[in-house]
Amino acid sequence: MSIHTKHLQQALDIALASAQKGTGPFACVITKDDQVIATGHNQVVELNDPTAHAEIQAIRAACKVLGSHQLTGCIIYSSSLPCPQCLGAIYWARPEAVYHANTAEEAAKIGFDDKFIYEEISKANEDRKYIMQKIEVPDALRAFEAWEQNPNKTTY
Amino acid sequence: MSIHTKHLQQALDIALASAQKGTGPFACVITKDDQVIATGHNQVVELNDPTAHAEIQAIRAACKVLGSHQLTGCIIYSSSLPCPQCLGAIYWARPEAVYHANTAEEAAKIGFDDKFIYEEISKANEDRKYIMQKIEVPDALRAFEAWEQNPNKTTY
Repeated sequence: MSIHTKHLQQALDIALASAQKGTGPFACVITKDDQVIATGHNQVVELNDPTAHAEIQAIRAACKVLGSHQLTGCIIYSSSLPCPQCLGAIYWARPEAVYHANTAEEAAKIGFDDKFIYEEISKANEDRKYIMQKIEVPDALRAFEAWEQNPNKTTY
Repeated sequence: MSIHTKHLQQALDIALASAQKGTGPFACVITKDDQVIATGHNQVVELNDPTAHAEIQAIRAACKVLGSHQLTGCIIYSSSLPCPQCLGAIYWARPEAVYHANTAEEAAKIGFDDKFIYEEISKANEDRKYIMQKIEVPDALRAFEAWEQNPNKTTY
């Protein structure tokens, strides 16, 4: 069994335990130097938190372990293909690589349809379900100017 | 001043305070029946959490207030156009509407380039920076089968 298969198997085992408990059947394992530094499973309903997908929970836990807001040199193992929210989080966290076992089609078959969100995000704003409506507010750029002028900021 | 402008102005004020503190110049206000139920600002560096964008923090706080994993009937006011991670979270949270003040182009000018992630997410997997690599694992669908068969699950 390859090291990648071993870590994915752990993610699948955690996903199975989560499904048996009645929480979402998804899990995630994050490694650094082939050592597991954090795991996460879907806790959306358990925590009343729509953002608490397996990957988000694992990324937050791994960053806490590393004391960093970046996953430099880490590998993310997701039991299923990450949804757009989690893919976005992955881009911000900047891990080394991402592996998954189950596909979006397989997840859709049991009622988790990320495909709809992927399609929506790829559309022009005016064609989306949630049209992001811009409102003109006077001095809206003041926060951006303050950020640029602040010598104590940490860029990321 | 319209009610939308008023709530966006609050988000912009929180964003300004965040920028002055040296944390990310972004904030979010969530209302229900025109009452503010939660706010959030960017805490990525402050909390060592790459997912702690203003919208994610506000969505989590609002859901805690409501005791629900859904933002039914709520309105999200973002100081800037939400990034793909946060747009994904918004789709999962299902609010009534989303308003924003600053644009992605304005955020890009001060170094926050969501556009790259929007472009990546819209690409075919094999063309992305993070290629999601599928690995075949025996019995990978066991968690999905357990979920389907579990009579105690809460679907979402």
